[in-house]
Amino acid sequence: MKQATPQVLVIHGPNLNMLGKREPEVYGSTTLAEIDQQIAHKAKVLGIQVEVFQTNQEGAMVDIIQQALGRMAGIIINPGAFTHYSIAVRDALAAVDLPTIEVHLSNIYKREEFRHHSVIAPVVRGQISGLGPLGYLLALEALSELLGRE
Amino acid sequence: MKQATPQVLVIHGPNLNMLGKREPEVYGSTTLAEIDQQIAHKAKVLGIQVEVFQTNQEGAMVDIIQQALGRMAGIIINPGAFTHYSIAVRDALAAVDLPTIEVHLSNIYKREEFRHHSVIAPVVRGQISGLGPLGYLLALEALSELLGRE
Amino acid sequence: MKQATPQVLVIHGPNLNMLGKREPEVYGSTTLAEIDQQIAHKAKVLGIQVEVFQTNQEGAMVDIIQQALGRMAGIIINPGAFTHYSIAVRDALAAVDLPTIEVHLSNIYKREEFRHHSVIAPVVRGQISGLGPLGYLLALEALSELLGRE
Amino acid sequence: MKQATPQVLVIHGPNLNMLGKREPEVYGSTTLAEIDQQIAHKAKVLGIQVEVFQTNQEGAMVDIIQQALGRMAGIIINPGAFTHYSIAVRDALAAVDLPTIEVHLSNIYKREEFRHHSVIAPVVRGQISGLGPLGYLLALEALSELLGRE
Amino acid sequence: MKQATPQVLVIHGPNLNMLGKREPEVYGSTTLAEIDQQIAHKAKVLGIQVEVFQTNQEGAMVDIIQQALGRMAGIIINPGAFTHYSIAVRDALAAVDLPTIEVHLSNIYKREEFRHHSVIAPVVRGQISGLGPLGYLLALEALSELLGRE
Amino acid sequence: MKQATPQVLVIHGPNLNMLGKREPEVYGSTTLAEIDQQIAHKAKVLGIQVEVFQTNQEGAMVDIIQQALGRMAGIIINPGAFTHYSIAVRDALAAVDLPTIEVHLSNIYKREEFRHHSVIAPVVRGQISGLGPLGYLLALEALSELLGRE
Amino acid sequence: MKQATPQVLVIHGPNLNMLGKREPEVYGSTTLAEIDQQIAHKAKVLGIQVEVFQTNQEGAMVDIIQQALGRMAGIIINPGAFTHYSIAVRDALAAVDLPTIEVHLSNIYKREEFRHHSVIAPVVRGQISGLGPLGYLLALEALSELLGRE
Amino acid sequence: MKQATPQVLVIHGPNLNMLGKREPEVYGSTTLAEIDQQIAHKAKVLGIQVEVFQTNQEGAMVDIIQQALGRMAGIIINPGAFTHYSIAVRDALAAVDLPTIEVHLSNIYKREEFRHHSVIAPVVRGQISGLGPLGYLLALEALSELLGRE
Amino acid sequence: MKQATPQVLVIHGPNLNMLGKREPEVYGSTTLAEIDQQIAHKAKVLGIQVEVFQTNQEGAMVDIIQQALGRMAGIIINPGAFTHYSIAVRDALAAVDLPTIEVHLSNIYKREEFRHHSVIAPVVRGQISGLGPLGYLLALEALSELLGRE
Amino acid sequence: MKQATPQVLVIHGPNLNMLGKREPEVYGSTTLAEIDQQIAHKAKVLGIQVEVFQTNQEGAMVDIIQQALGRMAGIIINPGAFTHYSIAVRDALAAVDLPTIEVHLSNIYKREEFRHHSVIAPVVRGQISGLGPLGYLLALEALSELLGRE
Amino acid sequence: MKQATPQVLVIHGPNLNMLGKREPEVYGSTTLAEIDQQIAHKAKVLGIQVEVFQTNQEGAMVDIIQQALGRMAGIIINPGAFTHYSIAVRDALAAVDLPTIEVHLSNIYKREEFRHHSVIAPVVRGQISGLGPLGYLLALEALSELLGRE
Amino acid sequence: MKQATPQVLVIHGPNLNMLGKREPEVYGSTTLAEIDQQIAHKAKVLGIQVEVFQTNQEGAMVDIIQQALGRMAGIIINPGAFTHYSIAVRDALAAVDLPTIEVHLSNIYKREEFRHHSVIAPVVRGQISGLGPLGYLLALEALSELLGRE
Repeated sequence: MKQATPQVLVIHGPNLNMLGKREPEVYGSTTLAEIDQQIAHKAKVLGIQVEVFQTNQEGAMVDIIQQALGRMAGIIINPGAFTHYSIAVRDALAAVDLPTIEVHLSNIYKREEFRHHSVIAPVVRGQISGLGPLGYLLALEALSELLGRE
Repeated sequence: MKQATPQVLVIHGPNLNMLGKREPEVYGSTTLAEIDQQIAHKAKVLGIQVEVFQTNQEGAMVDIIQQALGRMAGIIINPGAFTHYSIAVRDALAAVDLPTIEVHLSNIYKREEFRHHSVIAPVVRGQISGLGPLGYLLALEALSELLGRE
Repeated sequence: MKQATPQVLVIHGPNLNMLGKREPEVYGSTTLAEIDQQIAHKAKVLGIQVEVFQTNQEGAMVDIIQQALGRMAGIIINPGAFTHYSIAVRDALAAVDLPTIEVHLSNIYKREEFRHHSVIAPVVRGQISGLGPLGYLLALEALSELLGRE
Repeated sequence: MKQATPQVLVIHGPNLNMLGKREPEVYGSTTLAEIDQQIAHKAKVLGIQVEVFQTNQEGAMVDIIQQALGRMAGIIINPGAFTHYSIAVRDALAAVDLPTIEVHLSNIYKREEFRHHSVIAPVVRGQISGLGPLGYLLALEALSELLGRE
Repeated sequence: MKQATPQVLVIHGPNLNMLGKREPEVYGSTTLAEIDQQIAHKAKVLGIQVEVFQTNQEGAMVDIIQQALGRMAGIIINPGAFTHYSIAVRDALAAVDLPTIEVHLSNIYKREEFRHHSVIAPVVRGQISGLGPLGYLLALEALSELLGRE
Repeated sequence: MKQATPQVLVIHGPNLNMLGKREPEVYGSTTLAEIDQQIAHKAKVLGIQVEVFQTNQEGAMVDIIQQALGRMAGIIINPGAFTHYSIAVRDALAAVDLPTIEVHLSNIYKREEFRHHSVIAPVVRGQISGLGPLGYLLALEALSELLGRE
Repeated sequence: MKQATPQVLVIHGPNLNMLGKREPEVYGSTTLAEIDQQIAHKAKVLGIQVEVFQTNQEGAMVDIIQQALGRMAGIIINPGAFTHYSIAVRDALAAVDLPTIEVHLSNIYKREEFRHHSVIAPVVRGQISGLGPLGYLLALEALSELLGRE
Repeated sequence: MKQATPQVLVIHGPNLNMLGKREPEVYGSTTLAEIDQQIAHKAKVLGIQVEVFQTNQEGAMVDIIQQALGRMAGIIINPGAFTHYSIAVRDALAAVDLPTIEVHLSNIYKREEFRHHSVIAPVVRGQISGLGPLGYLLALEALSELLGRE
Repeated sequence: MKQATPQVLVIHGPNLNMLGKREPEVYGSTTLAEIDQQIAHKAKVLGIQVEVFQTNQEGAMVDIIQQALGRMAGIIINPGAFTHYSIAVRDALAAVDLPTIEVHLSNIYKREEFRHHSVIAPVVRGQISGLGPLGYLLALEALSELLGRE
Repeated sequence: MKQATPQVLVIHGPNLNMLGKREPEVYGSTTLAEIDQQIAHKAKVLGIQVEVFQTNQEGAMVDIIQQALGRMAGIIINPGAFTHYSIAVRDALAAVDLPTIEVHLSNIYKREEFRHHSVIAPVVRGQISGLGPLGYLLALEALSELLGRE
Repeated sequence: MKQATPQVLVIHGPNLNMLGKREPEVYGSTTLAEIDQQIAHKAKVLGIQVEVFQTNQEGAMVDIIQQALGRMAGIIINPGAFTHYSIAVRDALAAVDLPTIEVHLSNIYKREEFRHHSVIAPVVRGQISGLGPLGYLLALEALSELLGRE
Repeated sequence: MKQATPQVLVIHGPNLNMLGKREPEVYGSTTLAEIDQQIAHKAKVLGIQVEVFQTNQEGAMVDIIQQALGRMAGIIINPGAFTHYSIAVRDALAAVDLPTIEVHLSNIYKREEFRHHSVIAPVVRGQISGLGPLGYLLALEALSELLGRE
């Protein structure tokens, strides 16, 4: 029998705690708290238990990913600015090797050139970007599917 | 009042008609016909009407996108190989300017370097990649949300 | 004695059939039909016979260029998106080796980086860009001059 | 026992129908019809049945490659200009995965820089270039050998 | 009512005073004086008054462009070698912001790689290149049209 | 009436706590404590209240920038090594959008190539570099001017 | 005893004479004459004598820098467009080797890519950019400090 | 007389705490605890006292390096992912300027392109890579030699 | 009358003497001696006399090529590793200017990036690659044809 | 039972015979003969038999590596200048596939940019650099360990 | 009969008038006047008449080159900083097409990267660099030889 | 007292033994023997003793350079193809550190791009190129001067 209630870790990277407060033309006007409520609601519907974590610290993000090993069934990660340079976060994701989905609120291909490149992408299962907070919910759904199937 | 049953155009690019028949280690074993059935089913559930189109011809893809103007509420496109060089497809999408979601079955960042770059990405609303056929269903869901909201 | 009424082929590339209908801030508000009328009028004044052709298909563009050989005295081409990658169109132009003028409605150097490069330019006689529909008329005039002289 | 008469598909890409008519200093003075006769003759000698196809359309080339699956024992392809950018043709060749030999009439390394790179090369068995029409005949011979051996 | 006789400044860049005297295989055999006569004649026909200026000095070119402000209705400029590096000339053109057309006698895309790039192009209205002295006359015509329309 | 005593946050990045102790040929012999005294003195003269912060941690720098929102009127930042790769710090500065001046003690253009590029520079108001501790004092003066004016 | 009244040369590069007249969104609305008055005033306060020079000519800028040798105690230079390519100006500054501060009115890192690179920067003492006319005054202050100290 | 028992700091970077638990095909099956025992044993044999430190935080690594100044005779560092981008760690090592040896467990030149470049390497004495845990022991031996000699 | 028995020089580059002994997955299991026998046999059939030479020394390869002048009618060369960097071998081939065919056993476009580029290719008549030992035999056949024709 | 006395080949590349005679600031003052004595001594201690070889010829280095096959248990190589371009040496090492350690006397990352790249590194087991002659001794120790273990 | 006394133009570029006065470690301690005396002396010995010209102005250098046409038999040019970017000077040299020798006092390959590239070199007969003032004398000798021979 | 008759080593690189026999349009029609006679004659006039050496082998070139140490006063080297990649030759020249002049017969900047770069140039005193055999004579003269002076 599979794990009755799969645990999923949701990680928000640096500056995502500013969501809804600043630069709404890029990131929309929904706050992170509101997104977390939507995630919690969706998780309930899907029968998934989520643990949500926000940090501005690369090392803390590495720690939380490492600690997911053995406790979590999958990860949803919006690495924020770390997307573009944190090989440490990449290595942590590769090390725990859990089904992971990378989420970006905005379409990074419409922004500055340096945001087009993700060092994280080659180690995740899939990415969803440009769909705003909805991206997190679709990622949850996808993870639910993947976990049920494997 | 909004359009009672929104029409969504689903476009499959070159070689996607080979799905499930060849290279299952890259693209999985589901055939395009099976994916289209899943799409049809999901659309029904969401109250969306879909029109599905597969072509190996860039010009035909441009034509079908142009003809979506005025008839369709949104587009889901898996441009296949055209992702990486068809500025003509990009220009067509930019011209009709419908809410569009780009889908890739595999995680293109785990494949050859030249597949990491999409000339289509800067003109779409969002992308979903690496999640297999599920990607189309999540895209439909996202479009349903976006169309309901706008 | 030279050819009494020189024949000139005018080729419009992909998405130019959308002219005047979409993105007027980039391409202006004149439709392709209106441009074709201006071309026809100018040709009459210059004593030139024009044949006009629009296509979204690279292969069809190659065909029409090949067929110009022996029938046409010169070519005016706005290759649209093909400007930037269609080596097949370039090779066709090089093969027929007719006096050719490349026209772009917008100033491609004010747009995205990838639009600055033309694979067509090295095989044509001259280019006119950024002058809107007027570009076609000046090209006709130039071709009229060149044909009269050679 | 192996297939009595192996079927081989020979594909000529865009502008190869102009062979012998234009630019003889680059491509020689033999016409495509003459080359096809030489191919037919050589095939007869080798006990191979050939099907020859020329197209200026990328999509048509993709179609014909896909249709070779199950019917053909091998492919000889001169992708012409598509050599340098058609990932769609590459993906089709990778999908059908038949023994394939890439032929170029001229030595592409003596020509413009952009002709030095082939997106097709990594998915074929071997290449022969710079040897004119003879290249097709050597390719037939090689395919005959490979098919006999495998 | 618009300006009865619009004034247009024509600027010839460095080494254009050598025209017709040296390297006719690149630049043709017409001298600059002969081109200026053709320009004067064309201007008369179009009801435009032209002021012609040739200089080998970048600073003098910047000066003359600045002085056009308030006196001139438009500029035709063949920046010669400055095309490829003079950000000072570009800044001057951007500062006065008059309708400007960039002219090149030869097709710069058939020449050395470093001549393919123009630092001037992004700040002008349009370019005409590869058409020899005729390019200036077409530019005059275009400017006449643009000035009449705006 | 404007804020009686404007608050300015001064941030020193990684390794700046080593100032005056090591590598005086690059960074001078003044210690960070001495610089902070000069800043305090200058602030007093200008009627500004400063809060000074040094950290070797990227996440802590992001936190302190975020917390400046609503409390501070401007920021003076010497991002140290983070200048060259911390998109997280850049995003934090962009998010709070306070008048910010970037300071570097040494002339980074006389040092290793990788130090010439600042990912921070595009989101700040101005930069002062190469002037040693004096840079901070001039930045304070500039901020005082800017705050008085806006 | 040091020089009673230190002489400082202030150099304004090409197009700076257009300040306040054109493109105020980039360069502000203050004219060069007004800036020169502010400089003169500030110099008086600091007990410095300034000589101000504007030129659109690279050669003239080289001359004036060379002539500063032996007469001037320091240089403040806004090289304008020459910033990005004039190795001649760079070499002149390196040759006279006077304490020099490079000033830019706008934040060059918020503008076109080619404006991010300064060939001048590696031979000056420090740079101040993005602070408008205030940049000149801070540079004067810095020079006053440096001259007093050395 | 030299320091009776030289102190050496051993630093393990991000994700090295996962050693032996995940990805043994890349990093081997020995745990970090086992490596630390080997290091302790070797140190004893060599008459060196070691202090071992593991962190996933860049800032903490900078702190520990700074604190080595005056207390430690040398450093052995495996910067993990920080190898490739942490200029802050590099600057810290340059600042304390202690004899330092960089160790990598795997041969980084057999892995992804981005792992071939070390921003740390130019400021250390030597590197040992590809030799697994043995690398640390050889580094200790080398440091013992270097400290004895200097 | 042509040369009764044309002489052809066959050159095998560095490490080809290891063929069949090591790395059969890349280079096949046939030894160089076996290949040389196949070449001798084929030459006999074609009425060609071959001289075969293997060397690991660049200078020796240059010598043997130079000595072919006047003695040999053509060259077949597999330059091995020298393919990618030996401009000396290239210059020797260009100097003797004999009809030359470059052979590679493996498809170099399926291997490491640095193996895709041949400094030899621009000075030879044609290349055959990826077809194993058969490549030498086809090259002999091609040379036989070319020599008979010229 | 393993080989009683393992044989190790030590190869010194071009110009290493000049060691201790020239450029001591880069390579130290120890001569190659002295290094070879240290190697011999260390080998004796470790119960290894070494064969030492120095050459300035790439081809000779390839020969000696090939001849190690079957006779030697491992290789220590300082390829000198060949490190940066000799694909022939790389291919030889890959062909014999013996445990190999690459040694560099100086820290190549503190020297010219072109010395940072090793074409040899991807085919060896490990590298030791920057530790002077000691590097060879550590390499011997490492090889002793590896040979004992495998 | 050839021209009794050939005229040679010697051109010194920007900042060469500072020679011997500044940066002797790069350019030596001989002044330009002294070099000109050596040139005059050598010319007398060789029976050549020289005209020497120094300018800091690109336009003036273009003018003087143009005026050499018909009057001078050859040119010796040290373009100084213009070496690296003045396409205008290059075009002038190409236009007059006189035998020209490029001279550099210092070895430009030992200096900054940007000094390694000369836009002038492809249009001159030969270059002499790194030999100090002697370079001019050797250039005179070479020109004397070349003029005598042609 | 200086060495009565200074010894100078002249080295001709690969393929220079073909001079005058092949490709006269690039290298002229003088043979190497004739050049060596000119060198011998010039040396006699200058009171220099020359030793001339030609080789197609990189290793032999390294050997001869090393052996010059202590015996020769200077070197004239035309490294031929080795110019562009032989770091071994460069290192040998750097090691012996004798006054060296690099000579090229043709103007390498008028040839293929890869010939523009010399890995030798940064370690020599000066270069002379494009002046044919005369280059060697001028190099002798320069060396004579340099040796007399030092």
